[in-house]
Amino acid sequence: MKSAELADLGQQLRVDSVRAADAAGSGHPTSSMSAADLMAVLLAHHFRYDFDRPAHPGNDRFVLSKGHASPLLYAAYKAVGAIDDEELLTFRELGSRLEGHPTPRRLPWVETATGSLGQGLPVGVGIALAGKRLERTGYRVWVLCGDSELAEGSVWEAAEHAGHEHLDNLTVIVDVNRLGQRGPTRHGHDLDAYARRFQAFDWHTVEVDGHDVDAVDRAYGEALSTTGQPTAILARTLKGKGVEAVQDREGLHGKPLPDADEAIAELGGPRDLRIEVREPPAARMLHAVRAGHLDLPTWDLGEEIATRDAYGHALTALGTARGDVVALDGEVGDSTRAELFAKEHPDRYFECYIAEQQLVAAAVGLAARGFVPYAATFAAFLTRAYDFVRMASISGAGINLVGSHAGVAIGQDGPSQMGLEDLAMMRAVHGSTVLYPCDAQQTAQLVAAMAGLDGIRYLRTSRGKSPVIYGPDEEFPVGGSKVLRSSDQDRLTVVAAGVTVHEALAAADALARDGIPVRVVDLYSVKPVDRLTLRRAAEETGCLMTVEDHHEEGGLGDAVLDAFLDGRPVPRLVRLGVRTMPGSASPEEQLHTAGIDADGIAAAAKLLVEEAIVR
Amino acid sequence: MKSAELADLGQQLRVDSVRAADAAGSGHPTSSMSAADLMAVLLAHHFRYDFDRPAHPGNDRFVLSKGHASPLLYAAYKAVGAIDDEELLTFRELGSRLEGHPTPRRLPWVETATGSLGQGLPVGVGIALAGKRLERTGYRVWVLCGDSELAEGSVWEAAEHAGHEHLDNLTVIVDVNRLGQRGPTRHGHDLDAYARRFQAFDWHTVEVDGHDVDAVDRAYGEALSTTGQPTAILARTLKGKGVEAVQDREGLHGKPLPDADEAIAELGGPRDLRIEVREPPAARMLHAVRAGHLDLPTWDLGEEIATRDAYGHALTALGTARGDVVALDGEVGDSTRAELFAKEHPDRYFECYIAEQQLVAAAVGLAARGFVPYAATFAAFLTRAYDFVRMASISGAGINLVGSHAGVAIGQDGPSQMGLEDLAMMRAVHGSTVLYPCDAQQTAQLVAAMAGLDGIRYLRTSRGKSPVIYGPDEEFPVGGSKVLRSSDQDRLTVVAAGVTVHEALAAADALARDGIPVRVVDLYSVKPVDRLTLRRAAEETGCLMTVEDHHEEGGLGDAVLDAFLDGRPVPRLVRLGVRTMPGSASPEEQLHTAGIDADGIAAAAKLLVEEAIVR
Repeated sequence: MKSAELADLGQQLRVDSVRAADAAGSGHPTSSMSAADLMAVLLAHHFRYDFDRPAHPGNDRFVLSKGHASPLLYAAYKAVGAIDDEELLTFRELGSRLEGHPTPRRLPWVETATGSLGQGLPVGVGIALAGKRLERTGYRVWVLCGDSELAEGSVWEAAEHAGHEHLDNLTVIVDVNRLGQRGPTRHGHDLDAYARRFQAFDWHTVEVDGHDVDAVDRAYGEALSTTGQPTAILARTLKGKGVEAVQDREGLHGKPLPDADEAIAELGGPRDLRIEVREPPAARMLHAVRAGHLDLPTWDLGEEIATRDAYGHALTALGTARGDVVALDGEVGDSTRAELFAKEHPDRYFECYIAEQQLVAAAVGLAARGFVPYAATFAAFLTRAYDFVRMASISGAGINLVGSHAGVAIGQDGPSQMGLEDLAMMRAVHGSTVLYPCDAQQTAQLVAAMAGLDGIRYLRTSRGKSPVIYGPDEEFPVGGSKVLRSSDQDRLTVVAAGVTVHEALAAADALARDGIPVRVVDLYSVKPVDRLTLRRAAEETGCLMTVEDHHEEGGLGDAVLDAFLDGRPVPRLVRLGVRTMPGSASPEEQLHTAGIDADGIAAAAKLLVEEAIVR
Repeated sequence: MKSAELADLGQQLRVDSVRAADAAGSGHPTSSMSAADLMAVLLAHHFRYDFDRPAHPGNDRFVLSKGHASPLLYAAYKAVGAIDDEELLTFRELGSRLEGHPTPRRLPWVETATGSLGQGLPVGVGIALAGKRLERTGYRVWVLCGDSELAEGSVWEAAEHAGHEHLDNLTVIVDVNRLGQRGPTRHGHDLDAYARRFQAFDWHTVEVDGHDVDAVDRAYGEALSTTGQPTAILARTLKGKGVEAVQDREGLHGKPLPDADEAIAELGGPRDLRIEVREPPAARMLHAVRAGHLDLPTWDLGEEIATRDAYGHALTALGTARGDVVALDGEVGDSTRAELFAKEHPDRYFECYIAEQQLVAAAVGLAARGFVPYAATFAAFLTRAYDFVRMASISGAGINLVGSHAGVAIGQDGPSQMGLEDLAMMRAVHGSTVLYPCDAQQTAQLVAAMAGLDGIRYLRTSRGKSPVIYGPDEEFPVGGSKVLRSSDQDRLTVVAAGVTVHEALAAADALARDGIPVRVVDLYSVKPVDRLTLRRAAEETGCLMTVEDHHEEGGLGDAVLDAFLDGRPVPRLVRLGVRTMPGSASPEEQLHTAGIDADGIAAAAKLLVEEAIVR
């Protein structure tokens, strides 16, 4: 396209952004208008994509990190012929694919859900890593960011990651419109301020007038010809560009234009330009899934081994069987045992250093490209990435997260290293699966099962060794449980998971010697829970006592309730969990102090029996 | 001290670090040894502190961001005479104040709990802000960081904040020992790489050999004489410095030395040097608490006003009454209504831009200095700061967090902006308080009540308007609830909070017209819950139906269980919450689609009655 046509296309994207927001009565037209020329030039000249085949392996990838500028994205979809004008005007309506912030659940051309700022670049880095290190089909990743969101630390984790990995297939376009939601940004139109920061993280930078289509065109060309490092294009723009009533003015963020008709007239009226997007280069999936025989490790009954060790071994075996399995580490691979995978499959191992947001974001990016990522760090440190986990669930991303060193059972290191909120955090994520194995055999099976599930899957592993209690042929369906002690005289049921299973077994044996038979259920699947087994235990024993190495709220104790929420009779419930702030102590002392060791369980059970609270 | 003495002091700190870890059988002596000279020179020559009066307003503040190097900190405490050798050797024992990672809960000289990396500098920025903008007693904040943790984005949020605020009372000392936990860092000993990054964020930088005590001394002097910007001292060090068997070697992170006696001999044997720390300058608390009359706003019954508006007005009034109340914004003050406080009390308002980790960290820093911070952003975006909230609870920090725009009731913006996990996340934090008001009057009272509580306090506010249903004299104790509809014929109890209270009332009125009386409880205090009222409702109506604008896990539905966990009979339970992934739609459509509007509540109640599931 010639310059005048490009400029005209930019105006069309503005007009359609204004129209969409006007039809919806909400949305962010002014944030769309600042980036309209950047988008027009990108789509018309540089972006390579087959909108009829979003899965084409050669397609470039576009991420709208400033997801609130969705009207611009949808206006662009109209300009390329992917949606029609009628659909454009369904923006933000119930049932429309055109949500307030774009999601891949609804639209096949969206790579990842955005709307929480500072996430598009981190996920884009994950996609670019897949392209550069695994797929090698030559696609390019383009991320359009706002300037406000550069205040998010996650952007600099991503910048560091991309710079270090020399991701020259990645370009970030920063729409520096100088205005955030409530007023000016820290740096206003000081493009140098942003350029300095990106350069410090080893990026190439280009500063440009974001409304000069020829200059923007050259900037994209410069990004394409830059090798060995990613490029950041810092574009000076005006929020609400093109409409005097809103251009470069404060107090107009996230609002439709006051007079849409007048604005459209000022923008030159509606147009119907069509963009012919460049074809992607011929490419085939180079990471074709190797689906070989899965030879999971097994252990002997009674063998002492930590579930984190089992994770490392099982993941390595899974990686041998499946070429699409990749592993990511937050610089604790020696602790999570992800390092075992690294030794066997170094090409599919991604070191993210101590940057948990980037760890999860990279996993989301790899999942977007069809890989099956396992990202592991300490359970405690996954709290750092909660917003990314939440957004990944909105994306419908299939990622496996593994939190090691769970609970007070880690011992001396103290509370900062103990995952004591992770079960609550992960359970509350829509459509998540939460697994907490107690022995190596179970861990290995669950690691393999996770790969086949939808959505966010979380596996909690433990630091210390525990005995293998299950044989190699035992099966552990997700949503299941194991009844480990049972009689028709049971006076209550102890529901445990992970480290507390072993404590519960010891308590049950001690109680049995005292003439108090109790049932023990290993609830390794915390979400979904095994409703049938819990209901049967409730009917037959009348009382469930949950025991968990986690704070009392949101974990195992709350999870068992999921079996009784349809108005049916609920059993008596007793919850043992971590109630006080732990300090340093040995693992045994920690469990004892928290009252969740065998002694604590047996004492609580006895009290219930002796006070005739349970039958 | 002369150079030789300083070097000797460094050796003593190493020896004592080795001894402490050896006694514990765990810990991080090698990470302590790299920073020993940096610590020795700081304490002996520059740090001003009265260890007998940790609350002295003129005291400098020291934050050990690399909290795992606690042996070094405790060795320093011994050298200044704050603890004795006997206590030093209790390191990591049950009951010892000397935990694996330092916490202010146990030790009066610790400003904030560390151990999750990348948090010390962010909190240090909050303390430096208090010093610079509020206290003005001239103290300096010193933060000792590791090099690995500079990969955390939170460090760069903090760097941006400190650079922008010209915090020349802040010095970060980076112990660049080139080795992380599982191997070399990204940048090894490339001090320039770190210097470039800090400079880009407008910091002064000094590069130095961290084992040359004279050079370190000069570097501190340069930091002290730098005005208008914070200083980062990048110190080249060796992990395990001074002991050949471990010095600069991989694979030795977090392990006691293989032969402690030999190492101590190699370090020149034990010493008993005493550091005379410089006195702090005379200073008095300049932010003496103004404790005037609290004149909370009130509203008329039936008036339509959003609880977020009430938050803004109430906080402003609280700020007028109390000089120690401060407000922090994540660049959404126009949405959370924190901007109302900003207009009235600009000197106590802290704009943190879109950087939620820094938002919470700055609040923790301000709380450490005795202020009462209220930090607000969208409920959804507080997930970004979960690790900081978790660590704040370990610190015992008293901070108020406010999440606006909760739930599907926000409407068109879609799921990325909806807080649907916040109740679960906040409930799971040790010692937290979780409040969710339904009208303006209740909001205002709770905003005031929060200031007097311990630990993490969370208030959830709503975007849309709702009618005022409580009179100005109504009281809302934390841990209480309000029974809004009640008769001795009630067939079940609807437990609601926030927006669902209004839906529950409408449902109850409709059901009453159909001859089905139901009780309605406004459970505004989600943690702690009002056990007595819930138990009475259970006894009298037999069934509790919870209704919440939140995912089903970990929120209100789980919270009511807290009233029934001692083995007593549990009522029948039904839970209504957000089960599917929302899209865009109007607030009314959203509530209806989720089945948590008046229609959904009434329909569920009818079904239970008609199927004779409830009496």
